[in-house]
Amino acid sequence: MAHINLHNDLPGIRGLMEYSPETARPLNDLAEALLRADNSLSRGERELIATYVSSLNDCFFCQNVHGAIAGHYLNCDIPAIDAVKQDYLSAPLSAKMKALLGIAALVQKGGKQVTTAAITAATEAGATEKEIHDTVLIAAAFCMYNRYVDGMATWAPQNRQFYVDRAPQRAAEGYADYDLHK
Amino acid sequence: MAHINLHNDLPGIRGLMEYSPETARPLNDLAEALLRADNSLSRGERELIATYVSSLNDCFFCQNVHGAIAGHYLNCDIPAIDAVKQDYLSAPLSAKMKALLGIAALVQKGGKQVTTAAITAATEAGATEKEIHDTVLIAAAFCMYNRYVDGMATWAPQNRQFYVDRAPQRAAEGYADYDLHK
Repeated sequence: MAHINLHNDLPGIRGLMEYSPETARPLNDLAEALLRADNSLSRGERELIATYVSSLNDCFFCQNVHGAIAGHYLNCDIPAIDAVKQDYLSAPLSAKMKALLGIAALVQKGGKQVTTAAITAATEAGATEKEIHDTVLIAAAFCMYNRYVDGMATWAPQNRQFYVDRAPQRAAEGYADYDLHK
Repeated sequence: MAHINLHNDLPGIRGLMEYSPETARPLNDLAEALLRADNSLSRGERELIATYVSSLNDCFFCQNVHGAIAGHYLNCDIPAIDAVKQDYLSAPLSAKMKALLGIAALVQKGGKQVTTAAITAATEAGATEKEIHDTVLIAAAFCMYNRYVDGMATWAPQNRQFYVDRAPQRAAEGYADYDLHK
């Protein structure tokens, strides 16, 4: 049960967004800009960064929502996504993605943890400056979303198939102005 | 020097926002909704929560920007703001504000750190459910802004008077659509 009465029974951040539509709008606009707008990182790659940071923050709802969407875009199943969360260096990812996930992990610990060496490694693996910027901001943003979802003690469906079943619709509709009840 | 070439010499998040206007807009809209929109928590109280979380995250730029704006609204000087950051329980604040700052400190550590006891303490000190919600989201949001500013290694003016001098203008104009160069 959430720490306050949200006056709805929607799970995770959807319950919070229905409770507080005035903050839901910029939160969703940010997710749309970061995860779906045109970018040289694919939508699947960006969802994977969001998933990994959410797993580091131990946010069940966010890592399952975004893990399922990443799996949808990247055409892989949940065990494959879980393998990235557990050991991305051993996963079948590009050197660039591994370097960007390394930066994301540093951001999760704290902004000042990001080292010049980590940036250089990403650059040498082919990451552009915009891709590095977007990785830092995606990681930072999920340090917010995760804290919002868990700091309010929202509930989350425990059956992980729930998230897989919803992923195609969220991928198709995006984050801006979506119907919280669907 | 920032980790990437921002193509401008603006400090802190302003340099990042000029570099990435498509993400600047929702980031500023969120700050406007959280810190300035009508609320039973005053603007000064909300800026103080933002300042405290930024100090816990050791983000020099954000704690000075928002500390100066908090001081402007609350009509107190920087040493008084610093005293809150160092030991808010001993500061001349209401029991409600102390309880909300306690929740903010838990959110800074991680969403799951927020306890029922901390929520109950805030409620018993007179905090409304919306005030608790907004405190959690302000704290979560500054865990993002702080990581963005420091994760990109932006520069910050070291003379703290710089921030004090700018505070009245930011307080007057707000965060949405402000001129990054002024």
